[in-house]
Amino acid sequence: ADEQAMQRARERQAQLTKPTGALGLLEDLSVRLAGVFGTPTPAPRGAAVIVAVGDHGVVAEGVSAYPPEVTPAMVANFLADTPFGPGGAAVNALARTVGARVYVADVGVNATLPDHPALISVKVRRGTRNLRHEPALTRDEVIQAILAGAALAAEAIRNGADLLIPAELGIGNTTPASAVTARLLQREVPGLTGRGTGVDDATLARKQAVIEAALARGGSVPTDPLGVLADLGGLEIACMLGMMLKGAAERRAIILDGFVEGSAALAGMALAPALRDYLFAAGECAEVGHAAQLAHLGLRPMFRLDLRLGEGTGGVLAVPMLMSAAAALREMRTFAEAQVPDRA
Amino acid sequence: ADEQAMQRARERQAQLTKPTGALGLLEDLSVRLAGVFGTPTPAPRGAAVIVAVGDHGVVAEGVSAYPPEVTPAMVANFLADTPFGPGGAAVNALARTVGARVYVADVGVNATLPDHPALISVKVRRGTRNLRHEPALTRDEVIQAILAGAALAAEAIRNGADLLIPAELGIGNTTPASAVTARLLQREVPGLTGRGTGVDDATLARKQAVIEAALARGGSVPTDPLGVLADLGGLEIACMLGMMLKGAAERRAIILDGFVEGSAALAGMALAPALRDYLFAAGECAEVGHAAQLAHLGLRPMFRLDLRLGEGTGGVLAVPMLMSAAAALREMRTFAEAQVPDRA
Repeated sequence: ADEQAMQRARERQAQLTKPTGALGLLEDLSVRLAGVFGTPTPAPRGAAVIVAVGDHGVVAEGVSAYPPEVTPAMVANFLADTPFGPGGAAVNALARTVGARVYVADVGVNATLPDHPALISVKVRRGTRNLRHEPALTRDEVIQAILAGAALAAEAIRNGADLLIPAELGIGNTTPASAVTARLLQREVPGLTGRGTGVDDATLARKQAVIEAALARGGSVPTDPLGVLADLGGLEIACMLGMMLKGAAERRAIILDGFVEGSAALAGMALAPALRDYLFAAGECAEVGHAAQLAHLGLRPMFRLDLRLGEGTGGVLAVPMLMSAAAALREMRTFAEAQVPDRA
Repeated sequence: ADEQAMQRARERQAQLTKPTGALGLLEDLSVRLAGVFGTPTPAPRGAAVIVAVGDHGVVAEGVSAYPPEVTPAMVANFLADTPFGPGGAAVNALARTVGARVYVADVGVNATLPDHPALISVKVRRGTRNLRHEPALTRDEVIQAILAGAALAAEAIRNGADLLIPAELGIGNTTPASAVTARLLQREVPGLTGRGTGVDDATLARKQAVIEAALARGGSVPTDPLGVLADLGGLEIACMLGMMLKGAAERRAIILDGFVEGSAALAGMALAPALRDYLFAAGECAEVGHAAQLAHLGLRPMFRLDLRLGEGTGGVLAVPMLMSAAAALREMRTFAEAQVPDRA
């Protein structure tokens, strides 16, 4: 990030017509946006949420509350014509509200999806292998998914997005997200494994056992994050990592939504620690383990709404907050400009 | 609130294409909005932040970090022409970002303000009396300010606001807000008295002593909230109470911003407990005592950004969240409509 722009932003914040610090976290966010965009008065254009969709061989172990047929059905829902505009899913409704554009990309659905003009196919393979018993992906498949994510981010930026929200859909994907997080943070599984879409106690216990078994099986090491993603990850996780790396390389702000996104960010930090400067945590989601991810990333979330949906919904809610943080820094007058007496 | 609309909204939430409860607090907010607007698919039009401005005789006791001249200077700042549009204060920048309209009303500035086409004068008197030594207002003055607030809310609603943000500016006004809160909640002063715009330890101790003395002087009782406002309150506090009462009577949602607003809401709840159904807490602000107000009101805040500015800034940030909550309830498709398989 641009340290000089950040310093100038800090100096400007101290002169704006408010008590210093009175805008709390918004002030910190505005300074970080100044660093990302290389100016003390950042003016982000639009926002885009890019939903990468993939399936998971590990659903054969019974780790999810929903059947895998939900994945293609939800893709159709993302793209459906509705009286309100395209898309009948939560992310569509929220993105319309805040003016963010939604991209939907099939990076690994375990079905042949019907063609749709708004569906971007970057399919690497039909779902991952069952990580309980074998590596989920080859290293080459991981790299293909990363490159696909980078291309998606590049397209969104070309179309006007300065705030990027990597997002995901994939029945069963909190299982690889927990496994990747446990390996990268070298922490115990129970504190990093939650109920996903809402599994019961028996399924949660089975999910934890599956993740433990996968970690015992796989030989990936935290110093090789691509190896970890191949061993334990998912195609949408690798795809989101690609979005993050490209977004940071293009000096755009990346809004980090939930737990699955967090696993991609941890892999990204292990690859390129400077990525952290470009990440902005949206909310702390309800999934166990998200707080541990954010603590490791050193990011403070903006809200806690107990979201546990995915789709980038939390990230979309963070868009007006980041836009507001930038607007306050950019548009407020200084004490001198406004001729307001400062404190004694 | 409309219980039937709320029940229909709950039933609809359970059928939308997401795990039940996965949108967390947004789901609760959407059901409450259904109750306010009397429909299971609420579609709020615009939002308005109405900044009531007043001065306080108690500043003679040295309770604020800023001189009282800041009040009229900030009014000018709210109204100033800038390259970005009207207003160079934080609330202007944030309101532009989320598309909320800003109203500025002089209900009690201790100065004669220059005419401005966008300044609404509803002045009751030039500042309050010094509540350390005598009642801040007469009961008649309180009622005049309440009626002025009601008229402001009515105008904002006529102009398209379905989400109302009562807001305030007034150097020294966390002192009456703490005094009113302590009397209405019958709680000790220290836990309800914070640093306002950022006073030092010595000033904080003086501020607490002034509030203690005012409480010891005044004979108002919690069962007579208008008497409490006359004894210990402020004109902008009474004005915001009027906005809240009118907003609720007109079945609009009222976004509750910070600590000074909270003191008005406590008075409103004491007058008319049904007001609570129309109140939506924005963030938990940094001012000590705000959490106690929200707990008494039974409201869960949407975020915690450590804001301590006032001006309705936190309330403005809540606008996209409430609009998103309503949009998800209104625009998402059901499992049946989308032909998505529900959980087993």
